[in-house]
Amino acid sequence: MKVAIIIGSISDRSLLEKSKKILEDFGVDVHAEVISAHRTPDRAFEFAKTARDNNIDAIIAIAGKAAHLAGVVAANTTVPVIGIPGKSSTMDGLDSLLSVVQMPKGIPVATVAIDGAENAALLAVQIMSLKYPELVDKMEDYRKKLRAQVDEMNEEINN
Amino acid sequence: MKVAIIIGSISDRSLLEKSKKILEDFGVDVHAEVISAHRTPDRAFEFAKTARDNNIDAIIAIAGKAAHLAGVVAANTTVPVIGIPGKSSTMDGLDSLLSVVQMPKGIPVATVAIDGAENAALLAVQIMSLKYPELVDKMEDYRKKLRAQVDEMNEEINN
Amino acid sequence: MKVAIIIGSISDRSLLEKSKKILEDFGVDVHAEVISAHRTPDRAFEFAKTARDNNIDAIIAIAGKAAHLAGVVAANTTVPVIGIPGKSSTMDGLDSLLSVVQMPKGIPVATVAIDGAENAALLAVQIMSLKYPELVDKMEDYRKKLRAQVDEMNEEINN
Amino acid sequence: MKVAIIIGSISDRSLLEKSKKILEDFGVDVHAEVISAHRTPDRAFEFAKTARDNNIDAIIAIAGKAAHLAGVVAANTTVPVIGIPGKSSTMDGLDSLLSVVQMPKGIPVATVAIDGAENAALLAVQIMSLKYPELVDKMEDYRKKLRAQVDEMNEEINN
Amino acid sequence: MKVAIIIGSISDRSLLEKSKKILEDFGVDVHAEVISAHRTPDRAFEFAKTARDNNIDAIIAIAGKAAHLAGVVAANTTVPVIGIPGKSSTMDGLDSLLSVVQMPKGIPVATVAIDGAENAALLAVQIMSLKYPELVDKMEDYRKKLRAQVDEMNEEINN
Amino acid sequence: MKVAIIIGSISDRSLLEKSKKILEDFGVDVHAEVISAHRTPDRAFEFAKTARDNNIDAIIAIAGKAAHLAGVVAANTTVPVIGIPGKSSTMDGLDSLLSVVQMPKGIPVATVAIDGAENAALLAVQIMSLKYPELVDKMEDYRKKLRAQVDEMNEEINN
Amino acid sequence: MKVAIIIGSISDRSLLEKSKKILEDFGVDVHAEVISAHRTPDRAFEFAKTARDNNIDAIIAIAGKAAHLAGVVAANTTVPVIGIPGKSSTMDGLDSLLSVVQMPKGIPVATVAIDGAENAALLAVQIMSLKYPELVDKMEDYRKKLRAQVDEMNEEINN
Amino acid sequence: MKVAIIIGSISDRSLLEKSKKILEDFGVDVHAEVISAHRTPDRAFEFAKTARDNNIDAIIAIAGKAAHLAGVVAANTTVPVIGIPGKSSTMDGLDSLLSVVQMPKGIPVATVAIDGAENAALLAVQIMSLKYPELVDKMEDYRKKLRAQVDEMNEEINN
Repeated sequence: MKVAIIIGSISDRSLLEKSKKILEDFGVDVHAEVISAHRTPDRAFEFAKTARDNNIDAIIAIAGKAAHLAGVVAANTTVPVIGIPGKSSTMDGLDSLLSVVQMPKGIPVATVAIDGAENAALLAVQIMSLKYPELVDKMEDYRKKLRAQVDEMNEEINN
Repeated sequence: MKVAIIIGSISDRSLLEKSKKILEDFGVDVHAEVISAHRTPDRAFEFAKTARDNNIDAIIAIAGKAAHLAGVVAANTTVPVIGIPGKSSTMDGLDSLLSVVQMPKGIPVATVAIDGAENAALLAVQIMSLKYPELVDKMEDYRKKLRAQVDEMNEEINN
Repeated sequence: MKVAIIIGSISDRSLLEKSKKILEDFGVDVHAEVISAHRTPDRAFEFAKTARDNNIDAIIAIAGKAAHLAGVVAANTTVPVIGIPGKSSTMDGLDSLLSVVQMPKGIPVATVAIDGAENAALLAVQIMSLKYPELVDKMEDYRKKLRAQVDEMNEEINN
Repeated sequence: MKVAIIIGSISDRSLLEKSKKILEDFGVDVHAEVISAHRTPDRAFEFAKTARDNNIDAIIAIAGKAAHLAGVVAANTTVPVIGIPGKSSTMDGLDSLLSVVQMPKGIPVATVAIDGAENAALLAVQIMSLKYPELVDKMEDYRKKLRAQVDEMNEEINN
Repeated sequence: MKVAIIIGSISDRSLLEKSKKILEDFGVDVHAEVISAHRTPDRAFEFAKTARDNNIDAIIAIAGKAAHLAGVVAANTTVPVIGIPGKSSTMDGLDSLLSVVQMPKGIPVATVAIDGAENAALLAVQIMSLKYPELVDKMEDYRKKLRAQVDEMNEEINN
Repeated sequence: MKVAIIIGSISDRSLLEKSKKILEDFGVDVHAEVISAHRTPDRAFEFAKTARDNNIDAIIAIAGKAAHLAGVVAANTTVPVIGIPGKSSTMDGLDSLLSVVQMPKGIPVATVAIDGAENAALLAVQIMSLKYPELVDKMEDYRKKLRAQVDEMNEEINN
Repeated sequence: MKVAIIIGSISDRSLLEKSKKILEDFGVDVHAEVISAHRTPDRAFEFAKTARDNNIDAIIAIAGKAAHLAGVVAANTTVPVIGIPGKSSTMDGLDSLLSVVQMPKGIPVATVAIDGAENAALLAVQIMSLKYPELVDKMEDYRKKLRAQVDEMNEEINN
Repeated sequence: MKVAIIIGSISDRSLLEKSKKILEDFGVDVHAEVISAHRTPDRAFEFAKTARDNNIDAIIAIAGKAAHLAGVVAANTTVPVIGIPGKSSTMDGLDSLLSVVQMPKGIPVATVAIDGAENAALLAVQIMSLKYPELVDKMEDYRKKLRAQVDEMNEEINN
């Protein structure tokens, strides 16, 4: 079980760490790398074209502003690509969101919320659960924890 | 190989048909159903909770406006859910997009472009290819066809 | 006279407190609970379906981002549901607003302003005043206080 | 049982008719009137201030662009006011939506979706059901019809 | 020469002070008052209807969110009304801007930029210069000062 | 009494005609001219700088997209400038609106609604009424006609 | 003098033709080609990397939705790249605009208006005029024609 | 090799410095000046009309809000004009972006990202490389440095 998490710049590192933490909690190996669609386009191509041979099950791509990273990678591999639009310094992340989600017909990117690092990791796990059935039970346990968190919140607000 | 495509209203039927066509071209079985998060909430729950036992590999949920269908279903199953924000009569689809993609932490929806019915189907195929390796070659063939379409366009514009 | 205020996460607690304060000033009983449309969907259903039998006169639902809580609850009860779109960390609350207000035909949510906790409570009082006429006079008194506040402001700016 | 539906201009007539139709189906009396916050401000005030004495249980106000009608009426009565933002010729209704829903603290307007005429009427019925319990059963019947419509849609798409 | 500056809430006081300062620099009398379209609607009407008799040459109305103050006043007087959309806590002032500028046919509001307190005052002076020709020369002097400020900026950046 | 109406392109002619019609109904002379801030910048400057000497009481500037015409003219005259943002082929007029209304400190443009040709003319009349008191009565008559129109609409919808 | 115009899909052909027409009027050779950043990424790379050796002076890239074409090409060449955001079927071109213009630090794209095919060509000519001085005079002539067009418009509206 | 950088106000000075730094690193002379389209329109015209005779190869214009500076200068010269929309205090820079990029047919402005000072300078270098071939190699070196930065980031995140 291996997921690659790529970020367009080191400024997106905290999102990478959040995704990585969840994946590792599920026992998934993580390959982390800074790859810029614009500054290192050759590396972006090479990474994408070798992803399947490198046994990567899913790719999480994180970028902001005119965020082309997820789309460029998705165009060069058939491994599922999950895109996280990063909130940049202006436009409140709307530019990133539209650059990631509005992919033209033919090449999909599975987009999650702006800065949605946790959900990208969870989506990767759900996707991998088709191949690794042991992840189904782990995901059910995770959902239980979510429900337990709500129980705790209820204790907190009523005390 | 089975994908469920659910629509919030019959007005989204044309999007359903576009997704279905592509899935059937890849040899994937399709279960199509109208399920409204708001008008038939019990059915939405039942559908989601039984999806895994019904051997559904991925769910495509299509809805417009305050589009809660994908999120509500995703909350009740760990099968991957792909959301298509439908362009509604006002707001140019922005309301649908934000209602589908901006899911809070814990429950992801893999969102594609507004009215992105073809890409939702292709994403489902890419996800299923983790479990059914024969889909990898079919997807590579599909990509070749995309390239061939561009070749044809080039002949057209230079003649 | 009873109003239920539900929040999708403890992060919305301050909005809950603002609504609760006003309702209690009007002598209305308040039931407060954390219910997440996504993390605790079963509880959301159960809450909504038993609301009328629990003598709840109106429900105030507070959530942010892809804010489905108000809509999901409204789909499962005929008790009036007031939705407060919470301002989330991105998009300045536009995502919450559209997710709450743009409900499709059939299931209405009475939406107030982004973070409009006070107005949600006041709307609940106005709605309950149909059943409890004593609230009419109290609301008239409240309006008088609003006018008096403006008088005080005028003294302040002209001194 | 009486609801007043007011429109800012005759151009909003079709929305008025949709709301009226639903209310009459529920056996509710409807008072319909063109009142402009800007062209007939005195009438707007008089209407609002006499609404309670005229036994109006709820007010539906429909207006577009800088849509002040709902807010101006709400400021002059404690009868619940439901606002429908009308989609105007530009801005896709965003101007109307924000002008109606973003009411400042003190005076709430229960806002429904852009052009949401049916939901405004249904919300009025749910509000009135606090005073007229017979409306509860009627509303439950209406919900059943919504579910039946979905059943019919399912027959249609699977044939 | 008299201008009335009205604000919807004391939270807009700093904008009021900026407008007032400029007007007083031009030798214009200022009447400042807190008037809320929603909390003190009667006062808003009375103010507007008596404005001409009170020898007010122009009115500056400042409000945020669903900013109805300028429109409501404009509907009740033929004295020119200048609207300043105040930046509120959410939506970055877009809600205020659209609520002020998108007035329907018949009742204009002369709208300036979000938080544009200085320009509102300058516009009032330009309007009054039709009646008080001495303001023309003063405005020309003001423009000279603007040019001199740019000269100073140039000295600063090139040293 | 003279108003100049300038348009950035002949495509804005219908807006010009609407403004002109109302001004002529009020007995105001109209000077109409196509002046482009971008294609004929020298003419824009000359026009603005001679406006006062040409006895122009107010200027209405109509332009779309990156609509600089009103601002450029306002920078070169102290005659009041009213800006009409024209709805262009994309962006629904939002680009025009922001380009006209968001003027920086020092040079105001009195902005009306997108495509608000009638209101621009009415605002010009209200401004000129400071100098020509006979316009006050005419404007009161116009307001009466607006009210009468609403009366007619009421007859229509109730028959 | 050679400009390459590339489009992401044949649906952008009409924009290509508009740019081409203007360039040919200036005596500039045009290479036109359909290249998709997503469907033919290898061709996009090869095109960009050989552009300078193929004596291309400037590149015009036209694409819609999540429009990555201009950015991807710019990342692989130092020839100036002009991006035209195409208006797609939803979002009114805002998605294209932000995807093209919001390029991160390091790789610029010279962006023109949504569907701004003529201006992209004119910008290419202005850029090339640094190398080919004869284009300066031709551009001055073009500007004269723009002014003459305004003269003609003035004759038309005053007759 | 000379580039003029003009800013609408000294508040945009930090953007000017960022552009200037990069240009000087490439050995390009920089003329820096505060020129306001609105406060010093005559200077804006004179600057633009003499730019070519002053041997300016490219102009970078920086302004915020209703940002007319780039457009006004572009209308008065055929030297390429690069526009940087500055992020102003409200609207997150959207007003500036649309005011700069949405230029009507005939007069282009090469627009870069909101606050995109570095990219504006790099674009100017790429444009000048048509005339000064030595800049091509320097730009290739710059691109190498960008790639090296990504290498360093990779070392950082994997240690």
